[in-house]
Amino acid sequence: MSKLKCDISISLDGFVAGPNQSEEYPLGEGGEDLHDWVVPLAAWREAHGKEGGEENASTRVLDEARENVGAALMGRNMFGPIGGGDWGDGEWKGWWGDNPPYHYPVFVLTHHPREPVEMEGGTTFHFVTDGIESALDQAREAAGDKNVMVWGGADVANQYLAAGLLDEMELHVVPILLGDGARLFDNLGDADVRLEQVRVIEAPGVTHLKYRRVR
Amino acid sequence: MSKLKCDISISLDGFVAGPNQSEEYPLGEGGEDLHDWVVPLAAWREAHGKEGGEENASTRVLDEARENVGAALMGRNMFGPIGGGDWGDGEWKGWWGDNPPYHYPVFVLTHHPREPVEMEGGTTFHFVTDGIESALDQAREAAGDKNVMVWGGADVANQYLAAGLLDEMELHVVPILLGDGARLFDNLGDADVRLEQVRVIEAPGVTHLKYRRVR
Repeated sequence: MSKLKCDISISLDGFVAGPNQSEEYPLGEGGEDLHDWVVPLAAWREAHGKEGGEENASTRVLDEARENVGAALMGRNMFGPIGGGDWGDGEWKGWWGDNPPYHYPVFVLTHHPREPVEMEGGTTFHFVTDGIESALDQAREAAGDKNVMVWGGADVANQYLAAGLLDEMELHVVPILLGDGARLFDNLGDADVRLEQVRVIEAPGVTHLKYRRVR
Repeated sequence: MSKLKCDISISLDGFVAGPNQSEEYPLGEGGEDLHDWVVPLAAWREAHGKEGGEENASTRVLDEARENVGAALMGRNMFGPIGGGDWGDGEWKGWWGDNPPYHYPVFVLTHHPREPVEMEGGTTFHFVTDGIESALDQAREAAGDKNVMVWGGADVANQYLAAGLLDEMELHVVPILLGDGARLFDNLGDADVRLEQVRVIEAPGVTHLKYRRVR
């Protein structure tokens, strides 16, 4: 059965992006440091069309996160320019370059309707304006037997968590304090979310904590 | 050299106590669940005068937290009744029974002066009204070559963290969501706190993350 998984880097004080997100700082001030653990990895570099890089205990985690994924969900800010930009004219094609590292359909939650954008390498961005459940239905349909990933940001992850739709979460806990920004596990309201620890991997500069939802 | 360490259980959403702390719920609503990992341990039971219990990967963590400690610091609510109670008449001797599990001097940060309270088994509670640095000086003096522990709550830990006085933190990350309560890493202001991951231990129902301050 296809699962809905969330895989996200998080600061020790619970933020998945720093304060003051902008076109210059898509992950907010200090937020880029959340990815210091992944950027040097050979597997990450390869996915972004680069050679070289290192292998360490995080390699396995990155491989696991990328295997058997058939579609993904993300928030509007994770796709495009914070707070606006040239959405209307169809010029902007996301932060991810001509050949995004996904290679499967990505469903972007937004209030702004737009035609799908087909990129090189198999990634097509679809824009969903009628809510998280509709987006998930479309992603599951596209993914078939494979899993659907929520890549962020916090608001989208929190909505799926609160709705009881996430099956699994992997948190990459980075020992930095961002102080402010986009907080995971926020605004869950009265949602009764029960999690069970699945496995822990210690790696250079990060700890990977995997949890499963208990029904 | 004597170190200042903080050792604390924390929910996945960053709280070390739940909302609405009261005499009935000293750790707030749901907060007792933060200690589900430690209460069954033989080492914990022994420290609280009980027999039996289990051993698992957390045993080593609990043993480490308790070895070589010469004094401790804690907030007022961790010692006595939330929001008041019979502090004035000297009757109240803390949550911890006649023979508290510390067996060394404990310095309680409070605004209410009070004479020290000597308990059975080597624990004496001292009440410090002139701030965290004075309390630390007194605790270091009492501890000699041994370490000083900050046992909580969040406000006291955050103050020592913001002041750059904590050398080491061990977080026991429990897979529960409290939603509200006393948040660790809150109100640090502009403090430039840099941490380095020291070691990670996976155990039943908890992950132990140890960090060291980088100067």
